[in-house]
Amino acid sequence: MTDEQINVSCVGCGTIGAGWVARLILNGYNVKIYDPTPLSDSRLKNMLNNSKRAHKKLFPNANMNLGTFDYYTETAPALANANFVIESVPERIETKQKIYEQIEKVCSPQTVIASSTSGIKPSDLQKQMNHPERLIVAHPFNPVYLIPMVEVVGGSKTDLLFVNKACDFFTSIFMKPVHIKKEIEAFVADRLLEAIWRESLWLIKDGICTTEELDDIVRYGFGLRYAQMGVFQTYRTAAGEGGMRQFLHHFGPCLSWPWTKLMDVPEFNDELIDLISGQSDEQAKGKSVTDLERIRDDNLVEIQKALEKNDYGAGTLLKKARAAIEEF
Amino acid sequence: MTDEQINVSCVGCGTIGAGWVARLILNGYNVKIYDPTPLSDSRLKNMLNNSKRAHKKLFPNANMNLGTFDYYTETAPALANANFVIESVPERIETKQKIYEQIEKVCSPQTVIASSTSGIKPSDLQKQMNHPERLIVAHPFNPVYLIPMVEVVGGSKTDLLFVNKACDFFTSIFMKPVHIKKEIEAFVADRLLEAIWRESLWLIKDGICTTEELDDIVRYGFGLRYAQMGVFQTYRTAAGEGGMRQFLHHFGPCLSWPWTKLMDVPEFNDELIDLISGQSDEQAKGKSVTDLERIRDDNLVEIQKALEKNDYGAGTLLKKARAAIEEF
Repeated sequence: MTDEQINVSCVGCGTIGAGWVARLILNGYNVKIYDPTPLSDSRLKNMLNNSKRAHKKLFPNANMNLGTFDYYTETAPALANANFVIESVPERIETKQKIYEQIEKVCSPQTVIASSTSGIKPSDLQKQMNHPERLIVAHPFNPVYLIPMVEVVGGSKTDLLFVNKACDFFTSIFMKPVHIKKEIEAFVADRLLEAIWRESLWLIKDGICTTEELDDIVRYGFGLRYAQMGVFQTYRTAAGEGGMRQFLHHFGPCLSWPWTKLMDVPEFNDELIDLISGQSDEQAKGKSVTDLERIRDDNLVEIQKALEKNDYGAGTLLKKARAAIEEF
Repeated sequence: MTDEQINVSCVGCGTIGAGWVARLILNGYNVKIYDPTPLSDSRLKNMLNNSKRAHKKLFPNANMNLGTFDYYTETAPALANANFVIESVPERIETKQKIYEQIEKVCSPQTVIASSTSGIKPSDLQKQMNHPERLIVAHPFNPVYLIPMVEVVGGSKTDLLFVNKACDFFTSIFMKPVHIKKEIEAFVADRLLEAIWRESLWLIKDGICTTEELDDIVRYGFGLRYAQMGVFQTYRTAAGEGGMRQFLHHFGPCLSWPWTKLMDVPEFNDELIDLISGQSDEQAKGKSVTDLERIRDDNLVEIQKALEKNDYGAGTLLKKARAAIEEF
C-alpha cells in the first residue's frame, strides 16, 4: 500500500472517531468525515487542539505538516474517493451494518473498511456485506493521537490481504498494530480491562478502598511496570534465574484461591453509580475534563519521551516517528 | 516517629526482602538482616548493585549517603535493638507466626512488625501474638527500591498508632503508603493483578494471542495510562463533560456481557506451563534476567523522571525526594 495514495474517510466522529481524525491530520492526511452531529456541536475541535498541543511537545523541532478535514452530515460526499474507511459509530451492530451498506454502495470493493468497535466480532459485522473480505476490526485506544496500540482482527470471511494493508497503513502513521489471529468478543485489551474494571467495582462497592486510593495503588505501583513491559515479561524479570517456568510453578496454585470476586457481577444500581461518581468527583479536586485531558496528554508525551531515551517499547516507535518527522 | 531513631531489621532476604534492604540503604539506614540462606547464595548483592545503579540515574547530582548492612543467619543478633521489623519470609502463615514468636521474645512491645505478605490477612497473622496491636501488613512491589507503592493494612487487633507510625516511616523513605482500611485477602493491588493474570492465562491457553502480543497490547496501550492516572481517573477523563456518571451509565450494562472467562479457573497443568514458558523464552530474545532487570529499572527511572517534569503522580514523590536528597 506504500505506493498507493490513501484517501481516508472517517465515519463517526465521537471521542474515538475524532481521535482517529486527529492522528491522521497530524500525519498530513486530508480526511473526509461523516457524522450526523453538526460540526459546531462535535468534540472534533477540542480534540484537534489537544492533539496539536501534544504534537508540539512530542516533536518540538518538527515543522507541522498538517492535513485538513472536510466535515459532512451526509454519508455520500464523505465517502467519495475513499479507499480506507474508518468506522467509529455507536456500538450497535445494526447501526454499523447500515453504515457498511452505504459504504459498499459508494466505494470500490478494494476499499478497506476498518471498524473501531471495542467488542463486536468482525465475523458478525461482515455477515450481510457484499464484499465482506475487506472488513476488519481496528480497535484503538483513547486518546488515539497519543496511544500507539491498535488491535487488528479479521473475521471468518476477511482476506488477509486487507489485514496486511491495514497494518502497513497503521505502522506508517506510527501506531503499533497487533494482529489478533483468533477473534473473540472484546479481543485482548478489553478482556483484561473488563477483568480489572469488574474487580474494581467490587472493591469500591464493598468499601475496601475509594476510587482515589485504587487509582493511587495502580499508578504508584504496577502501572509503572505495565507502561513498559506488560504482564508476562514483568513476571519473567521478577522470577530471577529460575525464569518463567519457576514463576509459574510458584504462583500457579494460588490461582484457585478464592480471592477475586470476578465470578460474580456486581449489581449496577443507582447506589453504586452514586458511590463511584461521588468519589470520582472528590478525587478530581475541581479539575475540569479539559484540565484532566491536558494532564493526561502531557504525561503520555513525557512517558513516551522517557521510553524513547531507552529505545524501548512505545519509545522505540516515537524514535522512528521523530526520525521521519524531523527530517522533512 | 520523626524524632525517634529507627533501627530496622529485615527478616527474610529474598526478592522482596532484599528490595526493602536496598531501599533502606539508599536512604542511609544501617540494616540488620536475618535470612537462613548464606549471604554468598543470596540475591542481595545483585539487588544492591541494581539499586545503586538506578539511584545514580535518578539523582545524578546527589552525594550517595548510603547505609550499611549486617547479615545474620540467626535471628537473635539480627533483631537486637530493632524497633521496626520488616518480615518478608515465604507466604506460609505458620512460618510467619514462628518468626513473630521470635521477634516478640527479643524486641520491645513498641516495635512495629510489618509483614510484606501479598495475600494473608493481618488478623490471621497476629492471632497468636502477645502484642498483636503492632502487627501490620506493608505490601510493597518489586523492585521495592524503585516502585513507591506500599499497601498498609491493619488487622482487627492492630492499633492505629502503629499504622500511622509505619506510614510516616514509609513516607520518609519516599514511598507512597496507602492505608487500606478494610482488610481482605490479597488487599487491592493483587486483586486487580489476579484478575488480569487469570484472564491472561485464558487468552494464552485458548490461543487468542501469545505472551509477547499480550504484553505489547498492554505496554503500547492502556499501560501508558495506568502509569499516571489509574483506572477511574482515566475513564473520567475519557468521558467528556458528562463526567463519571455518564460513563457509568454508558458502560455499566456491558459488565454483564459474557466476555471474561474469569468465572472459571484454567487448569494449571504441564501443557499450560510449557506453552507459557516457551512463549516467554521466545519473547525474551536471549536476554538474561540481569539484562531484563536493568532494562526495567532504566525504564522505571525515566518514566518517574518524566512524571517529575509534570509534577504528577509518582513524579511528585520523586521531586520531593530530589529536593531532600540533593540538599545534603
